[in-house]
Amino acid sequence: MGAMMDIRDEHLTIRAWEKRIDDLLERPGDGAALFNVNEDDTREYDAIFLGGGAGGRFGSAYLRAMGGRQLIIEAWPFLGGSCPHNACVPHHLFSECAAELMLQRTMAGKLWFRDMNGVRASIKDVVDVFRKGRVGPHAIMNFQSKEQLDLEYVLNATGTIIDRHTVEVAGRRFRAKNLVLGLGARSQTLTCPGSDLKGIYTYESLVETLDYEPGDTVLVVGGSKTAVEYGCFFNATGRRTIMAVRSELLKVIPDLETRGYTVDRMKDQGMEIWEGSQVEQLEGDSNGRVCAAFVRTPNGIERIETNFVFCGLGETPNSEMPARVLDVKIGPKNEVIVNRQLQTSVPNVYAIGDLIGGPMEMFKARKSGTYAARHIMGEQVDYAPQEWPDFLHTHYEVSWMGLSEQEARAKHKNIITIKMPPDTPDGLNVALPACDRTMLYAFLEPKMSGFQKLIIDEASRRVVGAHHVGYGAKDSFQYLYQLMKQGLTIDQLGEMDELFLNPTHFIQLARLRAGHRKLRDL
Amino acid sequence: MGAMMDIRDEHLTIRAWEKRIDDLLERPGDGAALFNVNEDDTREYDAIFLGGGAGGRFGSAYLRAMGGRQLIIEAWPFLGGSCPHNACVPHHLFSECAAELMLQRTMAGKLWFRDMNGVRASIKDVVDVFRKGRVGPHAIMNFQSKEQLDLEYVLNATGTIIDRHTVEVAGRRFRAKNLVLGLGARSQTLTCPGSDLKGIYTYESLVETLDYEPGDTVLVVGGSKTAVEYGCFFNATGRRTIMAVRSELLKVIPDLETRGYTVDRMKDQGMEIWEGSQVEQLEGDSNGRVCAAFVRTPNGIERIETNFVFCGLGETPNSEMPARVLDVKIGPKNEVIVNRQLQTSVPNVYAIGDLIGGPMEMFKARKSGTYAARHIMGEQVDYAPQEWPDFLHTHYEVSWMGLSEQEARAKHKNIITIKMPPDTPDGLNVALPACDRTMLYAFLEPKMSGFQKLIIDEASRRVVGAHHVGYGAKDSFQYLYQLMKQGLTIDQLGEMDELFLNPTHFIQLARLRAGHRKLRDL
Repeated sequence: MGAMMDIRDEHLTIRAWEKRIDDLLERPGDGAALFNVNEDDTREYDAIFLGGGAGGRFGSAYLRAMGGRQLIIEAWPFLGGSCPHNACVPHHLFSECAAELMLQRTMAGKLWFRDMNGVRASIKDVVDVFRKGRVGPHAIMNFQSKEQLDLEYVLNATGTIIDRHTVEVAGRRFRAKNLVLGLGARSQTLTCPGSDLKGIYTYESLVETLDYEPGDTVLVVGGSKTAVEYGCFFNATGRRTIMAVRSELLKVIPDLETRGYTVDRMKDQGMEIWEGSQVEQLEGDSNGRVCAAFVRTPNGIERIETNFVFCGLGETPNSEMPARVLDVKIGPKNEVIVNRQLQTSVPNVYAIGDLIGGPMEMFKARKSGTYAARHIMGEQVDYAPQEWPDFLHTHYEVSWMGLSEQEARAKHKNIITIKMPPDTPDGLNVALPACDRTMLYAFLEPKMSGFQKLIIDEASRRVVGAHHVGYGAKDSFQYLYQLMKQGLTIDQLGEMDELFLNPTHFIQLARLRAGHRKLRDL
Repeated sequence: MGAMMDIRDEHLTIRAWEKRIDDLLERPGDGAALFNVNEDDTREYDAIFLGGGAGGRFGSAYLRAMGGRQLIIEAWPFLGGSCPHNACVPHHLFSECAAELMLQRTMAGKLWFRDMNGVRASIKDVVDVFRKGRVGPHAIMNFQSKEQLDLEYVLNATGTIIDRHTVEVAGRRFRAKNLVLGLGARSQTLTCPGSDLKGIYTYESLVETLDYEPGDTVLVVGGSKTAVEYGCFFNATGRRTIMAVRSELLKVIPDLETRGYTVDRMKDQGMEIWEGSQVEQLEGDSNGRVCAAFVRTPNGIERIETNFVFCGLGETPNSEMPARVLDVKIGPKNEVIVNRQLQTSVPNVYAIGDLIGGPMEMFKARKSGTYAARHIMGEQVDYAPQEWPDFLHTHYEVSWMGLSEQEARAKHKNIITIKMPPDTPDGLNVALPACDRTMLYAFLEPKMSGFQKLIIDEASRRVVGAHHVGYGAKDSFQYLYQLMKQGLTIDQLGEMDELFLNPTHFIQLARLRAGHRKLRDL
């Protein structure tokens, strides 16, 4: 049980927080618990948020803003959870490196770009940059939560659930009307022989523990978002990258043509994609580090020499403690079962974020936190994510929403598609689409400049799906999705004002077709 | 008067068009007029579009889709006008180079980035890449207009207005019920002594005629969009870049804080901004090329040695022919005056695009074309751009919509702002905002990772303005603007699903505040 440090009356600047967090991360489990608790407030807590990740922090902010009293208890010395520490933020840094390296390799020797032959980017250097810099975002969250959001929290100490109203932390018990569990999830790991060797990483352990430079071959296990995002980065650094995918690569991208463009570009970058393949065994060297992997493929067992294996197999909710102590009901994937008010099977106990299962995305973590807060504060709420715009990174940003073309054709009598590049034999080699961050491709390597497709129900003239591979459209899918849900038609789309050259060419392409009473493909 | 080549029955692929256009551009004024005219159609034309730029092409497509008959007459051998030939498209290529060079210089010596000391990028090489590649987009427009949009057109021959129903081209007269003028605009040039020297460019002449490598100092004249976009590119290539601005730089960016962040980053890149300054005289060398400029500044006359001057002073509509032949009414800036149905003062004569004055933006060109078409086809329409989302490039993308903070404070009783980075003494040095294309900055040079601000009217809880400096938000402003016009509130914004890390952090930041009955800044 660690010591306790009262920081309630300290005004810690962002810079001061950086230093404090950095010190505490250097000696995990050793530092004092940081208490930012308002001892003058005699009200009972409306909720204790166990876990200060995205859900706990946003839920707390909402509850506090509504006039309630809350307390976050978080084992790490910072708020914000895994996202800025080992998940979304490093993934985005790595994906930016992938995009940048692909550009530099493609343009090598042209214009001012240097020859990239033999240039292998260091994975460890990028990880080190992240590890050194991540205290910055951490510091902002601690600062913002204390100074701008008026939250109470205890950091750097693990909370233990005592009962459905009580949590113990750093030797002290806190009681609340409600308990909100935001304990997150952890990566699934390999279970084959040799899976305990050094040199086998998940996204969590990669940024925490990588202490050597991986060799020239990387094996990535998995075929969905995380595996692809990290795999493309490893590939872009200049390493042979093999993806061992149990079934098919990137099934998560719903539109087949969009998926095809995406996967073709990965292959163009030299990625080796082994579908229907599974790691059978990992072989270690005399230091206990992996040196080879045996992969069962449709063509038999292959042996790959590698000292670096990345495992991107999805995540398992951390539901063990609440199941054991509170007996909350757990689902088949270890997730805590909740209703549409985020209530578990135990009265006054809520669960939010990755702990309640998929989609394990930021928007759901944050929104489930705020909805739990609103319900606790007496609002009638109803939340369950059912449909949302989505994206992933390859070397590109891939964004989608609504129906795929094949789904749309199954659902509607007649479907119109509007595409770029044009659907012609030489379409892929033309300099469109083109926009910010794909201009050099458009002019020098046109097939790399992206793909986009809008799907329209002919009868209603409504947009029912949109798909985009490129850059700069991810953000817009958030807002375009809202318009689509409202019933956006091709005619309304054509009425908008494009900011040309816009990454989604949808407005102007829709306008080229909107004159037709009976719509046609473009 | 050139020869005529009938291409009506040729199915020209995009590749074939590329070659054809390339040949014709190599010998301007010399090639045959390309006739894609349906001689079997005996109907009178509903409209002749004089000028096949954005407005003429989109207007034609719309009119044709509505069942009308149209003809485009265009002097260049391609459709699409100045945008893909010398305006928006090269500007985007140059701005991409500016962003990429800034990144490479900032990261130089870190990770895999090479030392950039002494690396000066060739302006001429980038211009050559554009000039060589621009036939690609041209080819797509010709192909799409013929094969997918069923348009009739005559290219590579200048049309002469005979009367309000008749245009002569390549020795043949075409008659139509209506004439739609889309003759565009041209750059304003310097008028001081020496302004006829070689080495003085506008955006048009730069890509047409640059035939040497500019030296180490560039003088840019002007302080609005075009001047800044090109100036930042020249700066990023590694040249001393001086901007001589008559009044103030970037007055076009309405929010003062956003403008301040933008200008500060330009200065960080070493750009020299001389406000209140005007070129008085240009000095030539023995070959008739500029070698120095005399600039009147608030501190007196400065002499700058340079062999490269870029003039970005805005544009003048090409209204001379219609004024002379048809006597259409012209406004104070040489623009053809139109009503909200795009009709000029002469019956059956419409005008569209840059010819009718500002905003000289793509959306207005295209939409004015389609609105003229709809009116011609008998629809009741009403179009005049009054408000729109807007953007420009520095080394960044700068996007804005709605009210600036100061405008909002003047209009509403109480205004709430939500900002990133946070408004604290160390705010600029924190690693937020962070998103695609700013991750390396966020971790290694945080003050360069962008600025964003959302402006909310406290009473109605509505978003009334948004401002963004960074990357990847330009596209989203198109759609977010629609939501704002519908009355988007902070509460509705907080209900959306963010695609994290989203370039606009607006959704999640709004959600952190939405719990308050009485809103507060963040």
